[in-house]
Amino acid sequence: MKRRFIVNEGPAPRGRGTHVAYGVHAVAARLAATPPQVEHIYLREDPSARVAALADTAAQCGILVSRVPAATLSGLCGSDQHQGVVATVPPFRYGELSEVVAGGADRILVLDQLRDPQNLGALLRSAEAAGFAAVVVPRDGAAGVTASVEKAAAGAAMRVPVVRVVNIARTLRELKAREFWIVGLAARAAADVFEFAAPERVALVLGGESGLRRLVQEECDQLMSIPMAGRTESLNASVAGALAMYALRRRPGSLDLSAKSAR
Amino acid sequence: MKRRFIVNEGPAPRGRGTHVAYGVHAVAARLAATPPQVEHIYLREDPSARVAALADTAAQCGILVSRVPAATLSGLCGSDQHQGVVATVPPFRYGELSEVVAGGADRILVLDQLRDPQNLGALLRSAEAAGFAAVVVPRDGAAGVTASVEKAAAGAAMRVPVVRVVNIARTLRELKAREFWIVGLAARAAADVFEFAAPERVALVLGGESGLRRLVQEECDQLMSIPMAGRTESLNASVAGALAMYALRRRPGSLDLSAKSAR
Repeated sequence: MKRRFIVNEGPAPRGRGTHVAYGVHAVAARLAATPPQVEHIYLREDPSARVAALADTAAQCGILVSRVPAATLSGLCGSDQHQGVVATVPPFRYGELSEVVAGGADRILVLDQLRDPQNLGALLRSAEAAGFAAVVVPRDGAAGVTASVEKAAAGAAMRVPVVRVVNIARTLRELKAREFWIVGLAARAAADVFEFAAPERVALVLGGESGLRRLVQEECDQLMSIPMAGRTESLNASVAGALAMYALRRRPGSLDLSAKSAR
Repeated sequence: MKRRFIVNEGPAPRGRGTHVAYGVHAVAARLAATPPQVEHIYLREDPSARVAALADTAAQCGILVSRVPAATLSGLCGSDQHQGVVATVPPFRYGELSEVVAGGADRILVLDQLRDPQNLGALLRSAEAAGFAAVVVPRDGAAGVTASVEKAAAGAAMRVPVVRVVNIARTLRELKAREFWIVGLAARAAADVFEFAAPERVALVLGGESGLRRLVQEECDQLMSIPMAGRTESLNASVAGALAMYALRRRPGSLDLSAKSAR
């Protein structure tokens, strides 16, 4: 099959502040956005079938495609995890909480001070799979959406809105005013998140490596934990978040037992 | 408070083939084994309270403790993630499947071709928390328990037996003969793992980055999947494993609906 993409053998000039996405799923998700969020695609000289197909799609959209040595790809994205494809892209676009809520969101994940980009990426991926409509992160002191987060999210960062806020506690008060029930995940809480009959709208709050801050805990309607056997003190943050999101997900035909009304 | 540990200012000589453990939880778990699985503990010159307490415990057990510069710790373990403590240790001891089964295990995780040490570590941690009695890994072509796995497992590698086997398919046949119901996690399987009334004994089989091999799938009694909303194709392997283990975990008072008897 004849490849349609334009071949440009020169290495990629990259200015300061250029944003990139890398890895098959992350670049494909950038390309699938409307309009496509890709400026230029760079692929290795001997691309895999998936990367070649992705480049064809890009070329059909009028996006410039260049083949470059693998080392150039590593240089472009600062990682060896590029799977043969790097794209220069516009800056990541964060979502707006008001739009997310107006859009009918009923499950929102709130991350307080999560610092690890791998965990943030994995949580975005799990949030989409569990049917969570958005992920809220604080503007300061936490991981934002970087190229490595988009890579770890395997495309989910383009599909689940990520909302940055100045003050998590204030955001929780706003969500309560919109009838969200605020569940904080805390290691020592007595309530078992798997036993909870989740109400109509739920915001799940997950702490970072050192747990939920007191001011954030105080805004929660309920603190819950994941039951743990053995002597493990805690689970990996992305594992704990996925378990809690699945425990709280909206299931077809699930009853609204409305713990909300008891508030 | 006077520290009891012996201070030895010299850098640590480290021969070829020396095994290490690093990170607070991993070293503490090595120390808590009976007998302690630690030869010598190295800590940074200005240890955290947790590391100092760990060194005190070690010194009380007669284990030599030395303070060294942080750079020496990084050199010893080949990582910056040592949290101020590295121990030289005997080689990791794998478990025996026959002992695990004879010990009354009713939940076993089987990992087919998982290659990422971080995922293996996180799965060991989740296995302990979900009450799984052992983790089986293939001897070849998959991650074994290295120092970075022990670190990621946060101590669980010393508490959940890890069994290495030559042939996963044969092991599944052995487990079936011991009345284990073999559940394979497969992305496209119709059965929802959260809807499954798990029988008395369950072995959960998890594929690596490229899914379950056909020969392994054929040994499964049932293939199940984690329901996923959105367009995410798959979850991170350690997240998927944790979700499935929690879905299949033995709960106090859970009925034995014995899907086994239908086989």
